[in-house]
Amino acid sequence: MIYLDSNATTAIAPEVLETMLPFFTTRYYNPSSAYSAATGVAQEIRKARKTIADFLGMASPKELIFTSCATESNNHVFAGVTKSIPQRKHIITTTVEHPAVLEVCRDLERFGYDVTWLPVDRYGNLRIKDYVQALRNDTLLVSIMHANNETGVIFPIEQLSRIAKETNPEILFHTDATQSMTKLPIDLSDNFRYVDFLSFSGHKFHAPKGVGGLYIRRGIPCRTFLTGGHQESGRRGGTENVPFIIGMAKAIELAEKTHDEDFARMESLRDKLQNGILQRISYLEINGGGAPRMPNTLNVACHCVEGEGILFQLNESGICASSGSACTSGALEPSHVLTAMNVPFTALHGSVRFSLSRYNIEEEIDQVLDRFPKIVERLRAISSGWDQSKNQPRAQDRI
Amino acid sequence: MIYLDSNATTAIAPEVLETMLPFFTTRYYNPSSAYSAATGVAQEIRKARKTIADFLGMASPKELIFTSCATESNNHVFAGVTKSIPQRKHIITTTVEHPAVLEVCRDLERFGYDVTWLPVDRYGNLRIKDYVQALRNDTLLVSIMHANNETGVIFPIEQLSRIAKETNPEILFHTDATQSMTKLPIDLSDNFRYVDFLSFSGHKFHAPKGVGGLYIRRGIPCRTFLTGGHQESGRRGGTENVPFIIGMAKAIELAEKTHDEDFARMESLRDKLQNGILQRISYLEINGGGAPRMPNTLNVACHCVEGEGILFQLNESGICASSGSACTSGALEPSHVLTAMNVPFTALHGSVRFSLSRYNIEEEIDQVLDRFPKIVERLRAISSGWDQSKNQPRAQDRI
Repeated sequence: MIYLDSNATTAIAPEVLETMLPFFTTRYYNPSSAYSAATGVAQEIRKARKTIADFLGMASPKELIFTSCATESNNHVFAGVTKSIPQRKHIITTTVEHPAVLEVCRDLERFGYDVTWLPVDRYGNLRIKDYVQALRNDTLLVSIMHANNETGVIFPIEQLSRIAKETNPEILFHTDATQSMTKLPIDLSDNFRYVDFLSFSGHKFHAPKGVGGLYIRRGIPCRTFLTGGHQESGRRGGTENVPFIIGMAKAIELAEKTHDEDFARMESLRDKLQNGILQRISYLEINGGGAPRMPNTLNVACHCVEGEGILFQLNESGICASSGSACTSGALEPSHVLTAMNVPFTALHGSVRFSLSRYNIEEEIDQVLDRFPKIVERLRAISSGWDQSKNQPRAQDRI
Repeated sequence: MIYLDSNATTAIAPEVLETMLPFFTTRYYNPSSAYSAATGVAQEIRKARKTIADFLGMASPKELIFTSCATESNNHVFAGVTKSIPQRKHIITTTVEHPAVLEVCRDLERFGYDVTWLPVDRYGNLRIKDYVQALRNDTLLVSIMHANNETGVIFPIEQLSRIAKETNPEILFHTDATQSMTKLPIDLSDNFRYVDFLSFSGHKFHAPKGVGGLYIRRGIPCRTFLTGGHQESGRRGGTENVPFIIGMAKAIELAEKTHDEDFARMESLRDKLQNGILQRISYLEINGGGAPRMPNTLNVACHCVEGEGILFQLNESGICASSGSACTSGALEPSHVLTAMNVPFTALHGSVRFSLSRYNIEEEIDQVLDRFPKIVERLRAISSGWDQSKNQPRAQDRI
């Protein structure tokens, strides 16, 4: 099995599992309890919080809330600020956000909020001019993802957050860093110093599914979302997911240690895959290829084939990849991200995402370069849109 | 170590851990992905959902949403119904709920809701007359816990939910069954057939901390809380906590198998502990002793000692117990539950909760009966409120 779907979820690092195990067996105590066995567990959570807070350059570990996933973190931000500052009714976001921001914004529209949806260009880039024009006196929140889950395209958060604060210091800035966490440089005391809220999820960097985090800059008003007990300094009720929190901190430690090496290797494998595919398959586009991209992501649009068909054949060949994001698969509609990028109709449905992790090796890329072009060739042979004799799309003028 | 704090959290069953492990190692896939390795994981989640839905007598597994904890489930209910039915502004709850209901209701009061707080009597019972009088034409939701986490006192949910629906079928009924799940009979097609929402949490029945469930009866309006992807049929976004969901279903299977036996054994051990303590310690009350109680819970109020002092000494003796609930410990205020029950001032601060699980054995109870009375004796010897010569409280008239 060749796993190239790490933007959907990652394999759990063996070191992470090993670190978690005692908290499933002997150290199962509730960290809120008073006896020493339990306070020892609370101490481990404090250490985990400090590890992650330091990694992100937070001023204090108190700025970090542990959540169950980035979806919760994102919902927390929107629910928190709309409750804390009800008088400001304008929100800015993009058309290519993850559903955990997109759907929340749609919901807020139903409840009287005015949402500006920033478009992207053919490469997936935002136009800074659009953004500057969108900022208003009554803007409550800007929510723009750091890197796109489908294409890997990176948005200039440093610049965008600075512009927001320079325009009006009252505007709050949120970024969903679920895909970029551990992959791109994030320092809340430096390049992200104008960011007020940042969301992430453990399972994108070799921790398990079911734990995430939310940074809330000190002093920024944001009511609780999971209201209840005193956990997380009263900012998020619910008994802590002890093993996963500690596992997530371990995953951060691992990433910190090997990040530079991982980054370079993933990028070189991704580039090898990209170049190899471009050489072997005609009428193929790299979605987001003209924009700054994450080192691990490759999204290719093959004209005149169906992504579902490709995935089916890849699956038969033991290759795990994705069309659209996992969170919207299940639906047969084309990806909202590629639609927003105006990917041509004949290629929109033929897009496939390969996403790598530090565990991928060169032999796997070679295998994909051997199998993937044959799959596209076979599918085009039976595609009504493909002219087999000329080896090109029938409606070539539409491309 | 003698663990008598299972209402705070339980040890994870070894069978549960064993069932989860493959999902931390080889089967780490995102259940939303399209390849067969991932759809196999989705299939396991479907099986887990059916196991738990069947156990609770649901009409369909679609009525069950997996959440990260009971706190999320409770918040989901309140956020969901207030958004779905904004015109009804009255809520009924009790003064002894868990903070995950209590604090949410306090928050709703700040946002214009009228909340009726039902009191309890000296034994922890609700007065049905109060309840009937509280039901109004504009009542949106009744939220009453099944069993109290601190005292184990059971509320008559069957009767309360029936009365609500007979009074006005539009009134929605929620019960937080976090403490009773697997311990008391719950059948949503029988004794709980008038219940619209039910919350629970895996870590109270030997599954891990970080997973819970929410039952929403089919057809009952309730907007999403974690808005985002298509997971949980679009009712709760966020990548599923695969191992914990599957582990929770395993824990239910185990409970189903041994429930009757566990129940009888826990009750007999609890009763042995209770009777033994009553025989050995004077000026002691059983909080909730005059009410129907869960078989595993014993909350004792020792006059003229501090609960914190008892817990410290118990800890030194290797016994894990609790004063108040874990979710409100950390605070030094006396328990809101015991305060609501009008436990006398001299005993309010001297309350200790012992809560059992199926893993407790008789030898542990014997050990507690040996050590606990000596601890109380030692603490009373240095208590200003205790008359050592007469072996009774100084201000005996206040008791």
